[in-house]
Amino acid sequence: MTSSAASDLPGIAEIRAAELRLAGRVVLTPLLESPLLNARLGFRLLVKAETLQRTGSFKFRGAMNTLLQLDERQRRAGVVAYSSGNHAQGVAAAAQLLGVPATIVMPADAPAIKAANTRGYGAEVVFYDRWRDNREAIGAAIAAERGASLVPPYDDARVIAGQGTAGLEIAAQAAALGARLDALVVPASGGGLVAGCALALAAQSPQTRVYSAEPEAADDLRRSLAAGERLANDPAARSICDALLAPMPGEIPFAIHRRLLAGGLVASDAEVCRAMAVAFADLKLVVEPGGAAALAAVLAGRLDAKGRTVAVIASGGNVERDTFVKALAGA
Amino acid sequence: MTSSAASDLPGIAEIRAAELRLAGRVVLTPLLESPLLNARLGFRLLVKAETLQRTGSFKFRGAMNTLLQLDERQRRAGVVAYSSGNHAQGVAAAAQLLGVPATIVMPADAPAIKAANTRGYGAEVVFYDRWRDNREAIGAAIAAERGASLVPPYDDARVIAGQGTAGLEIAAQAAALGARLDALVVPASGGGLVAGCALALAAQSPQTRVYSAEPEAADDLRRSLAAGERLANDPAARSICDALLAPMPGEIPFAIHRRLLAGGLVASDAEVCRAMAVAFADLKLVVEPGGAAALAAVLAGRLDAKGRTVAVIASGGNVERDTFVKALAGA
Repeated sequence: MTSSAASDLPGIAEIRAAELRLAGRVVLTPLLESPLLNARLGFRLLVKAETLQRTGSFKFRGAMNTLLQLDERQRRAGVVAYSSGNHAQGVAAAAQLLGVPATIVMPADAPAIKAANTRGYGAEVVFYDRWRDNREAIGAAIAAERGASLVPPYDDARVIAGQGTAGLEIAAQAAALGARLDALVVPASGGGLVAGCALALAAQSPQTRVYSAEPEAADDLRRSLAAGERLANDPAARSICDALLAPMPGEIPFAIHRRLLAGGLVASDAEVCRAMAVAFADLKLVVEPGGAAALAAVLAGRLDAKGRTVAVIASGGNVERDTFVKALAGA
Repeated sequence: MTSSAASDLPGIAEIRAAELRLAGRVVLTPLLESPLLNARLGFRLLVKAETLQRTGSFKFRGAMNTLLQLDERQRRAGVVAYSSGNHAQGVAAAAQLLGVPATIVMPADAPAIKAANTRGYGAEVVFYDRWRDNREAIGAAIAAERGASLVPPYDDARVIAGQGTAGLEIAAQAAALGARLDALVVPASGGGLVAGCALALAAQSPQTRVYSAEPEAADDLRRSLAAGERLANDPAARSICDALLAPMPGEIPFAIHRRLLAGGLVASDAEVCRAMAVAFADLKLVVEPGGAAALAAVLAGRLDAKGRTVAVIASGGNVERDTFVKALAGA
C-alpha cells in the first residue's frame, strides 16, 4: 500500500491508498438531495452528510488514515493533536479504536460538547487560549517530551489523503445518481478537506470545479487564493463557525489549493444560520455552524448554480443544543 | 420479477423483488452508531436512519414499490392514498417521479409541513377529520369515482414488501459491521414497516428478535399481540407521535406480526422527546416523534439489551421546527 512522509505533497495515489486503508472503518455517508429543495433553488443540490461520520465530522478520516500508518513503537508512544474540537474527537476516537494513548490540545473556548466527547474517547485534554497561545508550539512541546507523534489537523499529507476519501465517495455517489457534478463546495479552515477533495475530484471528476467556503470574517483562504500567497486572518476575527477559525491556510493544503481550486466563497453568520435551518427542514440533518458554511454560501447565491448540479459537504454536526436552537430561531 | 396481488400475504420473495425494483431509486440509508452512546448504554445500538430516505421517511419505499407495479392504464388513471402524512409524501413523490396523478386524503390536523410538502410533490390534497371521518371510505370513494388505484398505507402486500427492503438493508449492514443482531425494534402504526422487516430478518438474520414500538397511549399492536387478535385504540387517545395513530393494526400486517414478532414495546411522550434529544446530540439526526418511538423504547430500558446488539429504525424526520425545539427543551 502506498505510504508517504507527512510533509510530502499527497496525490491521488495516497487518497486511493487511504480509501483501501479506511474501508469498513469509516461510515459511507450518504450524498443526499431533496427534490422539493431542488425545485425551490432551480438547481440540483447534493449534500454529503459527513455529519454522520464517526465522531460527527469528516476529521475521523484523516486521523484514522494517519494512525494506521504509525508503526508499533510509535503507537505505544502515543499521539498528540491540537484542534478546535472536531479533529480532537477524530484523533481521540481513532486512537481509542487502535489502543493508542492520545493527548489533545484544545482551545479553552471550544464548545463544551467537544471537550467532553474527546475525554469520552479516553484522551487527555490540555487547554490553551485561542487568542494568545501558539497551539502548534504547545503540541510540539508535549510530543517532544513524551516521544509521541503529532497528528496535525491539516498540514500533513496523511491527514489530507484521509480527508480526500470523502471526495472519492462524492464522485462515485454522484455518478451513481446519474449526476454530472459541475461544482463542489467544501468548508475550509486550515483547508485539509478541500485540498484532499480537490485532488480526488481532479482525478475522478475533472469537469467539477472545487471551491472553498469560509466565514465572511475569517476568509483567509479566499484572500490567499486571490493573492497567490498565504495570508492570515485578523486575530480579532470572530464567527459563529468555531470550527473554521484557523489562523491561515495550511502550507501543504495551500500548495494544492492554489493549483486546483476554482475560487473561495464566503458566508455570513446569518447565512450560516439559515443554512442550518434548511439542513434541518429539508434534509433532516443536524449541521454545526462551520459544517454549514458551504451550504450557506451556495444557498446565498455566491455561486452561479442555475440549472447546474452542485455538491456541498456538510462537514460536521457537533453543535450544542442552545446554539442549534438559536440558529433555527434566527434563520 | 415476482409480483403479487395487493391482498396476498407477502413473503421474502416479494421483498427481494422489491429490492431489485427499488435499486437506485431509494437512498441506501446508513446504519449508524455512536461509540460514546454505546459506552453510556452498556450495549451496542445501531440506528437505521430512514429519516434520510427520500421524502424524509421509509414510506417512499412501499409507495414506489407499489406504483412500479401498476400497468400503463392504471398509471394514467392515477393513484389515491390516505395518510397521516408520511405515506402521503411517499406516494406523492413516487407518483411525481413516474408521472402519475396523485390525490392524497389527509387528516386536517396533520403537521402543516406534511400537507405543504405533499402539495409540493404535485399531489392534490383532500382533508378529513381524524376523529370523525372514515379515511378508508373517503379514499375508496375518490378511487371509484376516478378509476384511480388506491395505495393503502400498510394493508397491502406491495407496500409491506417495499418497507421490508429496509430490513434487508439492516441485515446486510449489520453483517458488514461485524454485528450479530440480537434484536430489531421498529415503530408501528398500521404495522407495515415492522411486518416487512420481520419477514426480511426472519430470512436474512433468523436469530434477530423483532419488536414493534408504539406510543403508550396508542398501544393497539402490543395489546393485539398479547390477545392474539386485532384490538383497536381508544379513539380519544392522543400522542406527540402523530405518525403512529392508526386505529388498529392492519389485517395483512397483523397476520405477519402474530407469527413473527417477539413482542410489542411502548414509549411515553416524554421518553420520545428524550430519544429525539439523544438522536440530535449523539447521532446528529433530526427524528420526528413517531420516528423516535423505537429508539425511545430501547433507551427507556423496555428491552433487556445489556451486552447485546440492538438495532432500531428511526423511521421519519418530518417534524416542524417548534415541535422539535420543544422536544429538545423538554428532554
